[in-house]
Amino acid sequence: MALPDPFPMKRGGALPGGRIAYETWGEPDARGGNAVLILTGLSPSAHAASHPRNPADGWWERMLGPGKPIDTNRWFVVCVNTLGSCKGSSGPASEQPDGSGAWRLDFPELSIEDCADAAAHVVRSLGIERLACVVGASMGGMVALALLGRHPGIARSHLNVCGAARALPFSIAIRSLQREAIRLDPNWNGGNYDDVTYPESGMRMARKLGVITYRSALEWDGRFGRLRLAPDRRDEEEPFAVEFEVESYLEGHAKRFVRHFDPNCYLYLSRSMDWFDLAETHAGGSRDDDTLAALSRIRVDKALAIGVSTDILFPLQQQQQIADGLRAGGSDARFVALDSPQGHDAFLVDFTRFDPAVRGFFDAL
Amino acid sequence: MALPDPFPMKRGGALPGGRIAYETWGEPDARGGNAVLILTGLSPSAHAASHPRNPADGWWERMLGPGKPIDTNRWFVVCVNTLGSCKGSSGPASEQPDGSGAWRLDFPELSIEDCADAAAHVVRSLGIERLACVVGASMGGMVALALLGRHPGIARSHLNVCGAARALPFSIAIRSLQREAIRLDPNWNGGNYDDVTYPESGMRMARKLGVITYRSALEWDGRFGRLRLAPDRRDEEEPFAVEFEVESYLEGHAKRFVRHFDPNCYLYLSRSMDWFDLAETHAGGSRDDDTLAALSRIRVDKALAIGVSTDILFPLQQQQQIADGLRAGGSDARFVALDSPQGHDAFLVDFTRFDPAVRGFFDAL
Repeated sequence: MALPDPFPMKRGGALPGGRIAYETWGEPDARGGNAVLILTGLSPSAHAASHPRNPADGWWERMLGPGKPIDTNRWFVVCVNTLGSCKGSSGPASEQPDGSGAWRLDFPELSIEDCADAAAHVVRSLGIERLACVVGASMGGMVALALLGRHPGIARSHLNVCGAARALPFSIAIRSLQREAIRLDPNWNGGNYDDVTYPESGMRMARKLGVITYRSALEWDGRFGRLRLAPDRRDEEEPFAVEFEVESYLEGHAKRFVRHFDPNCYLYLSRSMDWFDLAETHAGGSRDDDTLAALSRIRVDKALAIGVSTDILFPLQQQQQIADGLRAGGSDARFVALDSPQGHDAFLVDFTRFDPAVRGFFDAL
Repeated sequence: MALPDPFPMKRGGALPGGRIAYETWGEPDARGGNAVLILTGLSPSAHAASHPRNPADGWWERMLGPGKPIDTNRWFVVCVNTLGSCKGSSGPASEQPDGSGAWRLDFPELSIEDCADAAAHVVRSLGIERLACVVGASMGGMVALALLGRHPGIARSHLNVCGAARALPFSIAIRSLQREAIRLDPNWNGGNYDDVTYPESGMRMARKLGVITYRSALEWDGRFGRLRLAPDRRDEEEPFAVEFEVESYLEGHAKRFVRHFDPNCYLYLSRSMDWFDLAETHAGGSRDDDTLAALSRIRVDKALAIGVSTDILFPLQQQQQIADGLRAGGSDARFVALDSPQGHDAFLVDFTRFDPAVRGFFDAL
């Protein structure tokens, strides 16, 4: 779907010829009031779940579909690929409309608020007057709050899954280091790489650091302990080669990622999260009080913020804060802490805990 | 001090011409029973505190000295630079005795147990029959347990500060990534760098990741929040330049480290921690039961294990485990959890909490 041309960007300038990829599930009802918008984390595409036109499993396959927690027999679900990403939406990896090649670092500075505005455009263009719910997970939880703040009345309810109203210094430090790893790779070359000369090492480092912070020490104690690779899976010639199962696990995750996400898009989206602070935009500050005040200006009927006790990247207090702030604004907002060992990634893997929490919220809408 | 020549290494081979650097404070009493051995974390030298021969502040200046928690008016204190380090002891950065240059990766594989054996040699050579106490912090806490396990009777008591009886997968993953950052730096060059062509980027990444895991998110929320650098401290030309104070803090820490610790030594010592598992050596396994069993075979009269609630690298449960295991073996062993926001590094900076804990233990010896 085309964005307004040019599409104004929060930090200055405008994006010409912008596009947003999206997928839908279910059917809009007569009054169009059953629409649910899903906003994703940093790397997923709009393919949240399988559907007849694309039967491949999506990234939230167990959450979304007929009879599932977000039941597509009842809800008309829309998932967008974030502005700035590389899965169909415009971003540093997409072509400039003037034919001069990919945007790379000439793409305008991207903020979470731009991602929210682009999603709002999709909602309006689909003829949805008011969403039944906006769901945002991880980075999508930031985008959802920006959307609700900048587009009052766009949704009746909100489900925030492991999101945050602002970036905290530990998460900023981790993301800054991930970006540094990519930028240090000589093959990154100021953003001018290609498939042959590609910043594979930098992306591998960034992804491994990501996976470390997406999971939890507790889970790994039980899962890997001190298990070692079998000798035939080890490189005996290399003195510092992978030796423990946990190292091999990171290696496997990295291998599946580095060639499937564009490094410049990664840098842009990562930086947009560091910049995000709902209070900075709305109240000029960044203390807890300001954040709560900014949240309290959001109006939804119902909200649920779900957090995970072992999440170190979007820690539990941040979802508690979201619920507290929304409640202070008059919303019926609840906070649920799930005691999953699987860290920030729990919402992608721990359906035993997430299924009932999400199902319960949607069933009661 | 020279090590036995050759000095046998646990994982095979032997080290010729080995040396260990050490410093001492206070005077041994007539019966030599007032000796305290301090084993350090990964990077410190033997200079734990100032003394007349070297008045510069040491890395544990506030812990050690006349009237301080480890009172050198009472105790004869010895601190060794770990075998494999680059602060005076033999390691990958030191010269081979045959005149063929620095050891680099030809240095024998280094284990925590080798570091313990080298420390035991220093103790014996100084004429100390039985230490009053062996103190180990962080990696030194691993070395101390190896020392007690391999040299029964070497100490009457033990103070374990943020140590561990085995490496856990989260810590292994972090250290593995730090080593990968160094090894990926083209200037590392298989260990063959010099001062001009030096793996500065790799060391910077490794150190930043270290600092992130040495501190805590909680501390940084209060200390940095979302503070940004003043415009005159920012590089406006560089699109992904340092912008937040927390990024600048990491940069500062890294700058002070990268040229002051040898990269190959870092790799060796880091790997030795991953390999460490008291139970693997003594009981063939690596489950909690095995670790407790291995700890219970250590005999000291008194022990204290101190942990910090926000430590993610050597989490609290590991010091609890040390105390539990030593107590199961008949020692009067206690566990103290300090509620410091400063993470693993608290023992180096949070003297408000560590002073009374350490002082109380030594006063009662």
